[in-house]
Amino acid sequence: MMRILLTNDDGIYAKGIEVLAAHLRTIAQVTVVAPDHERSAAGHAITLWDPLRVSTVDRNGAFFGYAVDGTPADCVKIAIQRLLKPKPDLVVSGVNLGPNTGTNIIYSGTVSAALEGAVLGIPSMAISLATFRQPRFAVAARVARTLCLQLRQLRLPPEVVLNVNVPNRPLTQLKGVRVTCQSRSRWLETFDQRRDPRGRAYYWLKGGRRQRDPAPDSDEQAVRRGYVSVTPISIDLTSHKHLDALQGLQSKGSAL
Amino acid sequence: MMRILLTNDDGIYAKGIEVLAAHLRTIAQVTVVAPDHERSAAGHAITLWDPLRVSTVDRNGAFFGYAVDGTPADCVKIAIQRLLKPKPDLVVSGVNLGPNTGTNIIYSGTVSAALEGAVLGIPSMAISLATFRQPRFAVAARVARTLCLQLRQLRLPPEVVLNVNVPNRPLTQLKGVRVTCQSRSRWLETFDQRRDPRGRAYYWLKGGRRQRDPAPDSDEQAVRRGYVSVTPISIDLTSHKHLDALQGLQSKGSAL
Repeated sequence: MMRILLTNDDGIYAKGIEVLAAHLRTIAQVTVVAPDHERSAAGHAITLWDPLRVSTVDRNGAFFGYAVDGTPADCVKIAIQRLLKPKPDLVVSGVNLGPNTGTNIIYSGTVSAALEGAVLGIPSMAISLATFRQPRFAVAARVARTLCLQLRQLRLPPEVVLNVNVPNRPLTQLKGVRVTCQSRSRWLETFDQRRDPRGRAYYWLKGGRRQRDPAPDSDEQAVRRGYVSVTPISIDLTSHKHLDALQGLQSKGSAL
Repeated sequence: MMRILLTNDDGIYAKGIEVLAAHLRTIAQVTVVAPDHERSAAGHAITLWDPLRVSTVDRNGAFFGYAVDGTPADCVKIAIQRLLKPKPDLVVSGVNLGPNTGTNIIYSGTVSAALEGAVLGIPSMAISLATFRQPRFAVAARVARTLCLQLRQLRLPPEVVLNVNVPNRPLTQLKGVRVTCQSRSRWLETFDQRRDPRGRAYYWLKGGRRQRDPAPDSDEQAVRRGYVSVTPISIDLTSHKHLDALQGLQSKGSAL
């Protein structure tokens, strides 16, 4: 039987991970290792300065898992390096409440947990539900289950992770699966300036309107049109297509 | 005169940012906005749950800057969205104490600060000194200055950031500049298990040995051979070269 490490960034008590655990348990032996509270926008932070604590959590029949007082990437590291023997066959991160599409996936703890799986050499997938209201987690969990079964046949290249986004609609209304590119869409944020009770200024990041990338083959457009978006993303950040254009920066030591 | 936003992840009181500020001030108007304490391995985390505080810091003649109680990416966001008018021409992050090469750049606050510059549409560079001992910050700062001058001529593609690593040797012993790829080298970490004074377990991430990628055109090999390594890295995480290989995942809705 396949062994799956399941994590997320909404925390071990989130509904999305509970529903996903139930679905994946029908095809795999599932171990949950997740943050002890919400760690959205944790990016790929890891904890070096402080130690980590691990507690066992019984989600009342839903699952028995490990809560870590660290980031999503910490959870995957400690799960694979210390808690799970043997190593899992697959790392799945989600179901995230909210889309992980466009430029903003760089902040996502959900996506970073999956990228950490790839760093450690395990095929990995992040799965997000593209809504913040009335989430149909069971639909996304069903899609994740189907993709996990497919990943038993299809070998992912070692540096590649699947970033999956599911439209929030009934399963029968999903139009299919599209392999997409990350769009350049992003939130145009601002900072509120406020005053504390002592009159001193503080600032708070505030989501603004969405700057939309109209590229038709993108993650965002696929979801908007009712398709499950599957974007292959890589832990190799090199912009290979720009290597030639930058040759002009090469120089001899004497030019420095 | 060019306007540069200078930040780092070692914090506003670090030596590396002080030396870099002094060098860049000879070619640009420099504004320093940096974390109020060390935030190494912060990755691309941003602060959503809490507000941010900004304090002015006078580094006794070295520079006058802004300290932020957030991550490196927070610093760049608040600098560009709120503190600096007009926006800077360039974001420079560093000089980091320690190399940022190989797979581990995914954890780097230094690199993430530069990537945040690109998210906000500003040409950006991360600069790191490949040592942890007896750092020659002035050499790295001199290299950064040269590259900043070159970036006035060469237009970086909007999604691309320069990740620069400088060998820790005298300027006259640098062999030149090489445009490189990110290597797959990484630290093989483990977790120490210890007991607190009450006898309860805690875990601490521990650097292990380095798994080295022998690819000759890589960041790590260039630095080892005495060259400044310049790797173009991208905020577009799509693995374009694997899009075709994954077409088998596409399906119609009825297959879900």
